[in-house]
Amino acid sequence: MLETMTKEEEAVLQANENFYRALQELSLEAMEAVWLPEDWVRCVHPGWEALEGWEAVRESFQHIFANTQFMRIVVGVQAMRIEQSVAWVSCSEKITSAADGRFDSAFVQATNIFHRRNGSWHLVLHHASHRPMPEQAPGEVVQ
Amino acid sequence: MLETMTKEEEAVLQANENFYRALQELSLEAMEAVWLPEDWVRCVHPGWEALEGWEAVRESFQHIFANTQFMRIVVGVQAMRIEQSVAWVSCSEKITSAADGRFDSAFVQATNIFHRRNGSWHLVLHHASHRPMPEQAPGEVVQ
Repeated sequence: MLETMTKEEEAVLQANENFYRALQELSLEAMEAVWLPEDWVRCVHPGWEALEGWEAVRESFQHIFANTQFMRIVVGVQAMRIEQSVAWVSCSEKITSAADGRFDSAFVQATNIFHRRNGSWHLVLHHASHRPMPEQAPGEVVQ
Repeated sequence: MLETMTKEEEAVLQANENFYRALQELSLEAMEAVWLPEDWVRCVHPGWEALEGWEAVRESFQHIFANTQFMRIVVGVQAMRIEQSVAWVSCSEKITSAADGRFDSAFVQATNIFHRRNGSWHLVLHHASHRPMPEQAPGEVVQ
C-alpha cells in the first residue's frame, strides 16, 4: 500500500494514526483534535450502542481515560478507501490496558470514517467491536 | 426525518431497507442486488473479523441463509449522512432467528456504508456488533 500512496491516502492514514495515538496516550486534547466536533458524529465502543454527537463521544473518552492507567494498541490497517470527501479505514486492534491495577487484552475490529473539510481529514464515525483472537480458527459465521 | 427528505436520502434509505429485506427473506439473489460486487467491499458480522471482497461476503450470507430457517429484523434507522457519492446509515437491529428449531434473539448496532455509482446506491460496508438490550441501563463504557 505504501508504494503507491497518494497525498490524500497519506493524510487519511495520518488522521487514523492520530486517533490511535490519542487513545494510547489517554489524551482528551489529542482526541479533540482528531474528531469533527459536530452533533452528528458517532462512536460505537465494543459491545455498546452508538453514542451520538461530539459531546457524548467526548464524555465517553473522558470516562475511559479517567478509568485507565495504561493502554497500548497494536493497530493493523487492513484497508482504506477514499471517495471524494469521505474515507473509511478498516483496522484490527489489539488493545492491552490496565485499570485498577488489572491488565486486560481485547481483540477488536474497527471501522473509522473520516470526512475532509477545509483540506483536513476528521474522524466522524468510529465503530469498534470484539473479534475472535487471531489464533482462533473461524467457525460459524453468525449474523 | 421524513418531512425534509431529499430524493437522495430516500434512495439511500431504500437501499438500506433492501439490505434488511434481503436478510429477512434469506435471499442471496436480493442480497446480490444490494451490494457492489467488488473485491474491496467489507462485512463484519457480530463478533467476527472483517470479510473482504464480495466473494467472501457472498459466501458468508450463503452460509447464514443455508443454516437459518427464519429471520425477522426490527430495524431502527438512527441516523443517515450523505457526503457526495458516499452515505452511511446507523441502525439498531433486533434480530429474531430460528436455526435447527431453536429460536434466538440478538440486539445489534450496525453501520452501513453505501456508495453511489451510475445513479444507484450500493452497500459497500456492513459492520454489525452486539449491543446491550435496550432495557439495560448503560454502565461502564469500555474501549
